[in-house]
Amino acid sequence: MLRHLLLRHVRRRRRYSSSSSAAAVVPLSAPTFAVFGANTGVGKTLVSAGLSAALLSSPSASAVSYLKPLQTGYPADSDARFVFTRTPALLRAASPRASRLVTSCRTLFPSPAVGAEPPHHERQETAVTYGGEGVEETKVLACRTVYAWREPVSPHLAAEREGMAVGDDEVRGFVEQWLVDGVVDEGEVWKVLETAGGVASPGPSGTLQSDLYRPFRLPAILVGDGRLGGISSTLSAYETLLLRGYDVGAVILEDRALSNDKFLLSYLRNRVCVLVLPQVPEDPSDDLTDWFSESSSVFSLLKDTLQSFHSRRIKRLSSMQRKSKDILWWPFTQHNLVPVDSVTVIDSRCGENFSAYKIKDNTMMLVPQFDACASWWTQGPDSNLQIELAKDMGYAAARYGHVMFPENVHEPALRCAELLLGGVGKGWASRVYYSDNGSTAIEIALKMAFRKFSHDHGILMDSEKNIRNDRNIQFKVLALNGSYHGDTLGAMEAQAPSAYTSFLQQPWYSGRGLFLDPPTVYVKNVTCNLSLPQSMKHDQLSSGDTCFPSLAEVFCKTRDTSSVSDLYFSYISQQLSEFSLSNSSEHIAALIIEPVIQGAGGMHMIDPLFQRVLVNECKNRKIPVIFDEVFTGFWRLGVESASELLGCLPDIACYAKLMTGGIVPLAATLATEEIFESFKSDSKLTALLHGHSYTAHAMGCSAAVKAIQWYRDPSTNSNLDFDHMRLKELWDCALVQQLSSLPNVKRAVSLGTLCAIELKAEGSDAGYASLYASSLIQQLRKEDDMYVRPLGNVIYLMCGPCTSRDSCTRQLHKVHRRLCDLN
Amino acid sequence: MLRHLLLRHVRRRRRYSSSSSAAAVVPLSAPTFAVFGANTGVGKTLVSAGLSAALLSSPSASAVSYLKPLQTGYPADSDARFVFTRTPALLRAASPRASRLVTSCRTLFPSPAVGAEPPHHERQETAVTYGGEGVEETKVLACRTVYAWREPVSPHLAAEREGMAVGDDEVRGFVEQWLVDGVVDEGEVWKVLETAGGVASPGPSGTLQSDLYRPFRLPAILVGDGRLGGISSTLSAYETLLLRGYDVGAVILEDRALSNDKFLLSYLRNRVCVLVLPQVPEDPSDDLTDWFSESSSVFSLLKDTLQSFHSRRIKRLSSMQRKSKDILWWPFTQHNLVPVDSVTVIDSRCGENFSAYKIKDNTMMLVPQFDACASWWTQGPDSNLQIELAKDMGYAAARYGHVMFPENVHEPALRCAELLLGGVGKGWASRVYYSDNGSTAIEIALKMAFRKFSHDHGILMDSEKNIRNDRNIQFKVLALNGSYHGDTLGAMEAQAPSAYTSFLQQPWYSGRGLFLDPPTVYVKNVTCNLSLPQSMKHDQLSSGDTCFPSLAEVFCKTRDTSSVSDLYFSYISQQLSEFSLSNSSEHIAALIIEPVIQGAGGMHMIDPLFQRVLVNECKNRKIPVIFDEVFTGFWRLGVESASELLGCLPDIACYAKLMTGGIVPLAATLATEEIFESFKSDSKLTALLHGHSYTAHAMGCSAAVKAIQWYRDPSTNSNLDFDHMRLKELWDCALVQQLSSLPNVKRAVSLGTLCAIELKAEGSDAGYASLYASSLIQQLRKEDDMYVRPLGNVIYLMCGPCTSRDSCTRQLHKVHRRLCDLN
Repeated sequence: MLRHLLLRHVRRRRRYSSSSSAAAVVPLSAPTFAVFGANTGVGKTLVSAGLSAALLSSPSASAVSYLKPLQTGYPADSDARFVFTRTPALLRAASPRASRLVTSCRTLFPSPAVGAEPPHHERQETAVTYGGEGVEETKVLACRTVYAWREPVSPHLAAEREGMAVGDDEVRGFVEQWLVDGVVDEGEVWKVLETAGGVASPGPSGTLQSDLYRPFRLPAILVGDGRLGGISSTLSAYETLLLRGYDVGAVILEDRALSNDKFLLSYLRNRVCVLVLPQVPEDPSDDLTDWFSESSSVFSLLKDTLQSFHSRRIKRLSSMQRKSKDILWWPFTQHNLVPVDSVTVIDSRCGENFSAYKIKDNTMMLVPQFDACASWWTQGPDSNLQIELAKDMGYAAARYGHVMFPENVHEPALRCAELLLGGVGKGWASRVYYSDNGSTAIEIALKMAFRKFSHDHGILMDSEKNIRNDRNIQFKVLALNGSYHGDTLGAMEAQAPSAYTSFLQQPWYSGRGLFLDPPTVYVKNVTCNLSLPQSMKHDQLSSGDTCFPSLAEVFCKTRDTSSVSDLYFSYISQQLSEFSLSNSSEHIAALIIEPVIQGAGGMHMIDPLFQRVLVNECKNRKIPVIFDEVFTGFWRLGVESASELLGCLPDIACYAKLMTGGIVPLAATLATEEIFESFKSDSKLTALLHGHSYTAHAMGCSAAVKAIQWYRDPSTNSNLDFDHMRLKELWDCALVQQLSSLPNVKRAVSLGTLCAIELKAEGSDAGYASLYASSLIQQLRKEDDMYVRPLGNVIYLMCGPCTSRDSCTRQLHKVHRRLCDLN
Repeated sequence: MLRHLLLRHVRRRRRYSSSSSAAAVVPLSAPTFAVFGANTGVGKTLVSAGLSAALLSSPSASAVSYLKPLQTGYPADSDARFVFTRTPALLRAASPRASRLVTSCRTLFPSPAVGAEPPHHERQETAVTYGGEGVEETKVLACRTVYAWREPVSPHLAAEREGMAVGDDEVRGFVEQWLVDGVVDEGEVWKVLETAGGVASPGPSGTLQSDLYRPFRLPAILVGDGRLGGISSTLSAYETLLLRGYDVGAVILEDRALSNDKFLLSYLRNRVCVLVLPQVPEDPSDDLTDWFSESSSVFSLLKDTLQSFHSRRIKRLSSMQRKSKDILWWPFTQHNLVPVDSVTVIDSRCGENFSAYKIKDNTMMLVPQFDACASWWTQGPDSNLQIELAKDMGYAAARYGHVMFPENVHEPALRCAELLLGGVGKGWASRVYYSDNGSTAIEIALKMAFRKFSHDHGILMDSEKNIRNDRNIQFKVLALNGSYHGDTLGAMEAQAPSAYTSFLQQPWYSGRGLFLDPPTVYVKNVTCNLSLPQSMKHDQLSSGDTCFPSLAEVFCKTRDTSSVSDLYFSYISQQLSEFSLSNSSEHIAALIIEPVIQGAGGMHMIDPLFQRVLVNECKNRKIPVIFDEVFTGFWRLGVESASELLGCLPDIACYAKLMTGGIVPLAATLATEEIFESFKSDSKLTALLHGHSYTAHAMGCSAAVKAIQWYRDPSTNSNLDFDHMRLKELWDCALVQQLSSLPNVKRAVSLGTLCAIELKAEGSDAGYASLYASSLIQQLRKEDDMYVRPLGNVIYLMCGPCTSRDSCTRQLHKVHRRLCDLN
């Protein structure tokens, strides 16, 4: 029954998600390990056989399932056959009592696919299994080869020479099936996957072993190298596994009289257990019986080590929900509303997917979940970029650690600045000011804008001498209702009052702005609709002014001469005039907007024409313009900077989130040379005195350098339409329209990597506190393996700039199906 | 003359700094490369010889200097001899015209030290050099072996078996000398250092090759492996070099008919150039003439590749000052006051030292600089911890990237929280709230305190229904003049007015606090002195109350019953009473202090007794107490938490900076369970609605887990006095007293990792804007290789928790000497 459940899970995943590089279902009911080699020929198969024997002679394991996904040199070499045929002998050697165990052999499948076979064999899941059952019914050993090639070379070369190509998806699909297969309700079936060659040996497609199996992130047994030079290759292989996020359960190596094990034991102390095997006889006719007999205590120790590794892992995973409830304090979370069993334990991430620890029908497993909230809108990496970033993070930490920034320069900070000015800042920005997150980038932007405004409007000419003489002058920002710029006080002050800004939350908040009601755009049924706020009179507008066949028309520059444009202009002028008439000591000293989409406010699309008119009016009045691109920047909306959609440029813009590829915090505030100039003088006191300890830290800048280039490069980002420097449509337009037409959907918006759907809700269901969407969310999380986090009644899906359209469509279908069911 | 200058530089460094793991002087006038192997026996020496021949047959190189620091199997094997004797033959093979080149041989040194020699040989810098001069005077080849052992095994094993131990410092000292040696004013002397074994093979002390030579960070030539399994070992070796911060200039490997080069070429595309050599004849009697002849075009290509790598590197380094001036905007920096040539170009960091690019007497070089400002007080790592952190950063990025935090848990966040609560939070804290930096941690702390205060004082009972009904109530903080808590508005509001908070800097600042004048403690001459502010009447105090033989007495708890304690109590009570009498709608809703030392305010030590009385008074009045430990936390002051020095506990405390070992930004606000409880209800609206995108990011938490454990563990932190859980004295007490006694020194303070010295300055020289110290600073930076950044008139030196006392003493001596010269 359990097996049935797991298989269903796997089948559903295959249907709805690309297994290509996603995390995968991994049952945790019994120990499962992957055997990696420090090099080829270091004895991975001997270790697999010895471990199998140790397991079968112990009372804890009821069965062993061994898998060799990729075999070359076949049929002369067959590691599966070796393990299967030698294990009984080892058992006898190790424990004569077990001699009658594992005696029969049964072929379950035809021979494995071997190169130079006819082409129609190529894509079959063919495999050979040696399955044995012992006298004791619960003790069984099954050994399986999946893909095999004749020539004893690396699989990528064999596949090339023998003409049998196998894709990563196929290999992974088989492994996933094997992991789920044969899980029994009682007793432990240990599973051992033996990789091919060394940790970084290519598989048939060229993907390295450690990358190929990364979605499973099975704990590793690293078979080290006892020969001269073996310390180096063992440690390097260990580091390659680290750089793929693997945990190594044990290192085991042959003694070659060089004491490599002693050195490794000392070097890896406190990190991983190191075991040493007696030297393997060099005589090829030796049947290894004596060697295995000598080695049996080591293999028994290996088994115990792995058993205890597995137990510690399970114990920790199963305690994490409770412990986190006891000692963590989550942001934006009412702890009373979070039951212990609803805490998501995230074991790892692989590209767009979490691997989450779950218990289903009393069975522990790791289950992939599509990170549909892009971890608070930060995520850019697919699984390839993630590993690239991991290498860069290791390198940057080793080369720079962190080095202080003021009056200094280091390559990552400079290169990142060059890329920012050549990309999102192109055509306007000339300076980069680094900080840590969106909120600090905004505080810095406001300080920049206020100084420039003071400069341009002659307010602070004598400020140096008399620092506090201008206290009667008050600066305010011009901003939009529904906007959000961060949680530190300065950023909060620039946004309109909301539940986030109550006295309860921040008694110091006063809301230092003139906040305008913006017109919004949304999809409902088959059209894009413009919704004007009550405060704008709009009797004279035609439906052609408020209804558009597609988003492209909304962004069209010809609207600049429409009557809507006139309406916006008079509304804005009037608001600014009224403000200056009623507040003689108050100045609007900055405009701050989120271009095109207001994120935290509920994923509202603001009419770009309105924002364009607003920007132009502020520029006319010498009010500095700030774009808060923390959410919208770096392809979030399908273009590198949302200013490309607006068709106008800021004086200052803030970037964070996606900038580092979504791996570490870093923010940048870009500014024009005119802004920068307003801080220059001969006094340190007029400098911008704002900084954070890790300003321009090398890790963040290095990540940004890699990510910015990766997104922008068609060879790494296949979503990129290079001619127009835009992402191709990721969220199927027809499907979004279909969704928007459902009776329980109020509106939809999809742009770039974002697709947002607002559910209909009335009265107390509305607003931030709404729990209305929660049943839908629970279904998506539990049944559909999507990690969704709503914004009130708004459900949104967010992918990375490189996520495949297919994957997006699969996610969208899940939501569509659930919404239909709700009706 | 230049050589003389460089040698002087090296000698001074040797005298004043530990070369053990510090960055080292590396001239950049000619290309210098280190030859690393993917494994042993892959042909490093053949590559060295081939490259030397290619260089000597080209017009660009005037000479080649080859170094083999560690040789085993000697004298049967001598790579230096091989290179020296074979290069002329290669030259003939490659270019018959050059046949008369490199003909003579000259022994400059006695035989290298070889194991089993008498012990008195052990520590000599003995070496054998084959030095040749050609017919053309400018073409020379010198090949040198430094340390050699008889047995052909790994150097660590040979050293163990043959009884000749060589420390890392000795090897590095020799390499540094070699790098500087023979630098000529004209023409290029290429230098080639050949490592022993593979990238991770141990040297004689057990330090891995890649770690042993890391202080020089020479660009690498990686000799790959063409054999079966060689793709894996080559890529793993490459990654080991990345994880040490090396740049790889080229990968070169022998063709063994497995097309390893093709795969590597494709995999490493855009990263590093891959070259392939013809297969080496297996017959040991082959003199390789034909092979070298066949290979000469590849070696020529290798030479060109390295030449162009070197040129690009130099070009970039020499353009970085100008470019950074043009596009960066440094925090806290008046750009007009930074001449282009004063910008510090930081090429890398190694433990406590920067490696900075400098031009001295028209020669480019990398020069180590002790990071005496600990990169804005963040730095913890010695060179070992830095590499440990690099591995952890690679692993965390590969395993997790970043995953969203609210209602979720992942191992690094949970483990870090456990360590925080078991360490700095022990005995009081039960919850951990993560954010990004000190400033955000403070904003969160204030929100926590205000909520708790409201709760305890019945202020907000109906706030949920009527969000803004309490606008007439004003919350203020109790804080100390001279305090500093960060640059975001909320953190600024909690500090007293200063140059940082002027209208010019932040028009929204109003200073929402009651700011008290604190008494301070300092060293002058041989005593610790207490300085009371004017606002405290203190006629009745004896000199025993204000003068202490040492800091220990200042911290002594018996002072609680002294008359100073009474004085503090009445001062504080009076201030609080006056405040509440004159402000009926205003409440002191939090106390916020930097325990013991006020950092940014000028490294002032506040009397711990005063802070203790303050904390107790606030606790009595149910005013929540916040410790800002962003600067003081994690051993900065010699104890893990400065509250141990104060002898009292907070309700809330903020940590950042050193917490991650000084590698990436991360902050934590710790709180008691009572604080946490005041946010609990059944409504999401009462939750703490403050969060940042990268809250509890896995990289930061992983770094913190490693760093916190590293500092606390006597096996990794030799400064730790484990019985008292304190750091041993790092700054020599007598020397600090001597410094404080100098006529141009006003006061000194040294505690834990901090040593601060205030220079005497009067009138316009005083204060933040002071440039008084600048000549001293320039001398320390330029002549003494110390990166010092002053706080006004305060010069401070800051090391990491694991920095050796010797290194601190050397730095202190430099400052002492300069201050004496100034007198």
